[in-house]
Amino acid sequence: MHELRTLFEKYRKEHPIQGEPANLYTPANYILEIGGKRFRPILTMLAYQLYRKDWERVLPIAYALEIFHNFSLVHDDIMDAADVRRGFPTVHTKWDLNTGILSGDLMLIMAYEYIAQFEDSTKIPRLLKVFNRVAKGVCEGQQMDIDFENRGDVTIPEYIKMIELKTSVLLATCLEMGAIAAGASDEEVAHCYEVGRNIGIAFQIQDDLLDTFGTADKIGKKVGGDIVQNKKTILILRALEMAGAEERAWLLDLMCKPTSNEAEKIEAVKALLLQLKVPDFAQAKKNEFRATAFQHLDELQVPEEKKTSLRALMENLVTREY
Amino acid sequence: MHELRTLFEKYRKEHPIQGEPANLYTPANYILEIGGKRFRPILTMLAYQLYRKDWERVLPIAYALEIFHNFSLVHDDIMDAADVRRGFPTVHTKWDLNTGILSGDLMLIMAYEYIAQFEDSTKIPRLLKVFNRVAKGVCEGQQMDIDFENRGDVTIPEYIKMIELKTSVLLATCLEMGAIAAGASDEEVAHCYEVGRNIGIAFQIQDDLLDTFGTADKIGKKVGGDIVQNKKTILILRALEMAGAEERAWLLDLMCKPTSNEAEKIEAVKALLLQLKVPDFAQAKKNEFRATAFQHLDELQVPEEKKTSLRALMENLVTREY
Repeated sequence: MHELRTLFEKYRKEHPIQGEPANLYTPANYILEIGGKRFRPILTMLAYQLYRKDWERVLPIAYALEIFHNFSLVHDDIMDAADVRRGFPTVHTKWDLNTGILSGDLMLIMAYEYIAQFEDSTKIPRLLKVFNRVAKGVCEGQQMDIDFENRGDVTIPEYIKMIELKTSVLLATCLEMGAIAAGASDEEVAHCYEVGRNIGIAFQIQDDLLDTFGTADKIGKKVGGDIVQNKKTILILRALEMAGAEERAWLLDLMCKPTSNEAEKIEAVKALLLQLKVPDFAQAKKNEFRATAFQHLDELQVPEEKKTSLRALMENLVTREY
Repeated sequence: MHELRTLFEKYRKEHPIQGEPANLYTPANYILEIGGKRFRPILTMLAYQLYRKDWERVLPIAYALEIFHNFSLVHDDIMDAADVRRGFPTVHTKWDLNTGILSGDLMLIMAYEYIAQFEDSTKIPRLLKVFNRVAKGVCEGQQMDIDFENRGDVTIPEYIKMIELKTSVLLATCLEMGAIAAGASDEEVAHCYEVGRNIGIAFQIQDDLLDTFGTADKIGKKVGGDIVQNKKTILILRALEMAGAEERAWLLDLMCKPTSNEAEKIEAVKALLLQLKVPDFAQAKKNEFRATAFQHLDELQVPEEKKTSLRALMENLVTREY
């Protein structure tokens, strides 16, 4: 996996986002340069490698998916008014709003440009279709997330649907496009998709758990950010479901008001979550999706030894310590 | 031409932009519903009809290009802080900034979705490549336009390059994609592109002339908007080139200051432009590009009677009265 990351990074550095006018291209290259774990392109490469050895051919597709992911970060950071990403200023903070919008647009187009570069052009129409589907899905997920802010009646199934669209269908499509590019059968492609979709949901639930119950040095950002921002994560939704009338009213009230003492608010919400055994519930949910993902991995008709790296990456995605 | 517009509008109404969540799809449909002359899809249909009769097949491509054009309007209106478009509030004004960004993103993706729907899938990779090229070009043109605001040394060739990217390459690509979809030869495709590129530049110069020397009822908006916004149009650039040191300093100074009396400023700038014979220069430039466009039209190896509608639309684009 470390090796695939190195190979991907080599390709990326050989294909920097550059052009004229510089004010358009430089910010796009900046967001790709400041890091990221490259889970998405690695998933594409891993899926391709299940079926074919000439992994270099899938690099344009892998790169397209990483560029798309970074496009969505640039525009989401504007919408979420986020100043910092991966420890660096976000594009609209380092430059300005217009630069964030336009450089993001460019990146979305460049993702399509790399898809169009896939060597076997007979596969491009299908790759284009599945990519369009996921790109729309990510927009829909982001809009649901925005809509949830103004709603007091979000259910856990709705929340799962939202994170599925916003996060997990992209991981699913990374595996799917790798398998399609390699010429895998429809059945194999479908299992690859389900591996990604389910592990993606588990990954996001893990992310919600880490944000509230992790430690700053392990998660690389401040703990409790979701609580401070009054985000309706699965933890909060479960708490609202399980709480008595009084606790429920207290929590809803707390989430409507501006936060006066952040640390105090975080501790109070955490205490309620623990009291209501919310982490156990979230862990169980996570493990459900995790198990389904591995079931689909087992279904893939390739020798077990070829699945080793993908299996390891899946474990890595859902078992980060906290 | 009127007939093609009706046919296009019928297809568009049968394929409204709709889906869930509504807050994402409704604004995208809104901008398409409030009008526009549909020049771009009609150009695509006209180019296709030069070579084939089954014009219904090209409708998804024509629609893709109209959706793309409207995507660029939604995002440009944010960047230009424009409140009104076609007499209606712009998307970010009617809804909000985030809606403008995200609905715009959705539209860009939906443009690709309609390209992917073209029946003859063997042509999709090539259609995708030329569409990617124009989409990047439009972003580059918009960035150049933004960059020009802060520069005092913009030249007329640079300005022509900017309007080529921002406006005319899209008209060019509308014709090009119609010809490609119809299976025209590479040489025919290249001439179609040049027809659009040149008529597009002439069209934009005409637009600059109309904005300053038109009448409000003919152009459908306030006259002198470019002057009030201190836009470096070809008229202003020519004036700076031709003016004596004193007039030049006066004009540059006027363009740096906030406008206290709009009507007075417009009249003063117009007087200078007329004195320097700038409209004659702009007309001559326009006619150069117009002539080149018609030369390429003449080169097309199709019977003259098939070119009639395209010829009429081209005339229409560059001879609107003022």
